[in-house]
Amino acid sequence: MASTDVKVIGKAPSPLVNRVQIALNLKSVDYEFLEEQMGSKSELLLKSNPVHKKIPVMIHGGKPICESLIIVQYIDEAWTDGPSILPLDPYARAMARFWAAYVDDKFYPTLRAFAFGSVEGEEAKAVAREQLMEGIMLLEDAFAKCGKGKDFFGGDTIGYLDVAIGCFLGWMRAVEQMSSIKLIDETKTPGLFGWAERFGSNDAVKDVIPKTETLVELAKTMAPRAKAQ
Amino acid sequence: MASTDVKVIGKAPSPLVNRVQIALNLKSVDYEFLEEQMGSKSELLLKSNPVHKKIPVMIHGGKPICESLIIVQYIDEAWTDGPSILPLDPYARAMARFWAAYVDDKFYPTLRAFAFGSVEGEEAKAVAREQLMEGIMLLEDAFAKCGKGKDFFGGDTIGYLDVAIGCFLGWMRAVEQMSSIKLIDETKTPGLFGWAERFGSNDAVKDVIPKTETLVELAKTMAPRAKAQ
Repeated sequence: MASTDVKVIGKAPSPLVNRVQIALNLKSVDYEFLEEQMGSKSELLLKSNPVHKKIPVMIHGGKPICESLIIVQYIDEAWTDGPSILPLDPYARAMARFWAAYVDDKFYPTLRAFAFGSVEGEEAKAVAREQLMEGIMLLEDAFAKCGKGKDFFGGDTIGYLDVAIGCFLGWMRAVEQMSSIKLIDETKTPGLFGWAERFGSNDAVKDVIPKTETLVELAKTMAPRAKAQ
Repeated sequence: MASTDVKVIGKAPSPLVNRVQIALNLKSVDYEFLEEQMGSKSELLLKSNPVHKKIPVMIHGGKPICESLIIVQYIDEAWTDGPSILPLDPYARAMARFWAAYVDDKFYPTLRAFAFGSVEGEEAKAVAREQLMEGIMLLEDAFAKCGKGKDFFGGDTIGYLDVAIGCFLGWMRAVEQMSSIKLIDETKTPGLFGWAERFGSNDAVKDVIPKTETLVELAKTMAPRAKAQ
C-alpha cells in the first residue's frame, strides 16, 4: 500500500521524476504518485515549488523538496536504514556529484532537444549528435573510473550516479530508435552497454522507466509543440 | 604555512573561488593558492578539469575536485573534525542545497551580466534589475526560513548557504556602486542587511572577499571584452 507520508508529484515519462521513483524504490519507501496533467500545473505543484514550478516535487510529512538530484540526496539522508545511495568516501561522493551535474547541465538538454525534434537543420543536428556522442564517451570513461570494473557506477550496487544517468536510459533508447544514432554500443561503449542491461533490469528500476515505444509516441506528439516554442 | 597537500587553482576576484577559500577557512585548513593568469589557462587547470576547464579546482592529496558547490561539500565531508558546513538535518540540508542551486542557476548569471556590462539597452537593463531584485527578495525570505531568526542562514554559525550566497557579496556591492540598484537594503531586506554585515566581517571571510573598489575597477576593464563576446 502506498504511504500517505510520501508523495511524488510528477509525470510518468519524465526522467527526472523517474530518478526520484528509483531512489525511493532502492530504499523500499512506498509513495503515492500524483500525476500532473499534460499542459497544466496543479495547485499543489505551484504551491510546493513556487520558485521553479517544475516537477518532480517530493512531499515528505507535508514538507516539499524540489529538484531531482536534491531529492535523491534527501532520500539517502532521510532513510539511513536502507542501502546507501551516495558512496561513503568523500572523493567518490564528489566524483558522483560531478558527473551527475555534468549529465544534467550538458547531456540532458541536448538529449531532450534531440528527442523532441527541436534541433533543426542538418548542421545543427550534426553538432548535437557530436555533443551527445562526446557525452557518452565521457560517461564510458567515468564508468571505468567510478565503477572500477564492478557492475555499477556505485560499485557492486546501484548508487547516486547510476540513478542520475540511468533515469535517461528510456529516452536514450527512444532517440536511438528515432534517429540513426547509436548511443550505447556494445563495441564502442562496452562498459555502458553492460551497465545499461544490468541497470534497466534491476527490480528498483524496471517498472519505473517507460517503454521505449511509449516515449517514441510521446516524442512525436511533443515535437510540433517544441518547434512552436 | 600553506599546506602543500591542498591547492586551490583560481583567481582572487572570482566569487566561486572565494567560496572554496571561505569553506577551507571555516575548517581551518591551510592551502596553497595557485593564481591563474587573466586570459589564459594553466596546464594544471586543463589537466585537472578537462571537462569544463574552469576555476575553481581544489587539489587534495593530488586528486582534483571541480565545481565550487561540490568542492564545498567535499571539504565538509573530508574534514569532519571542523565545524559542520552543511546542516545536519536532512530537510535543512535539502533547503540549503535548493537555495544554493537557485543562486548559481538564476541569480549569479544575472549579477555577472550586470557587473560586466553585457546587459545592453534600457529595456534589458530594467528586466535584469527586476530579476535581481526578485532574487534578493526570495533570498530575504529564505534567510527567515532557513536562519529562523538567528545570525546566519546556517543558524548560529556560518553554513553552506551562507558560503554559497555570501561569496557574491563583493560583486553585489560592486554592482550597487556602479548602478542605481540597491540590492541589500536596511529597510527592504533587513534580514539580509544584518546578515551581510555579520558574514562580511567574519574571520573566515573578511580577507577573502575582494574590496569593492578592486571589483569595480576590474568590471570596467572586463566590460569591453564581455560586450565583444
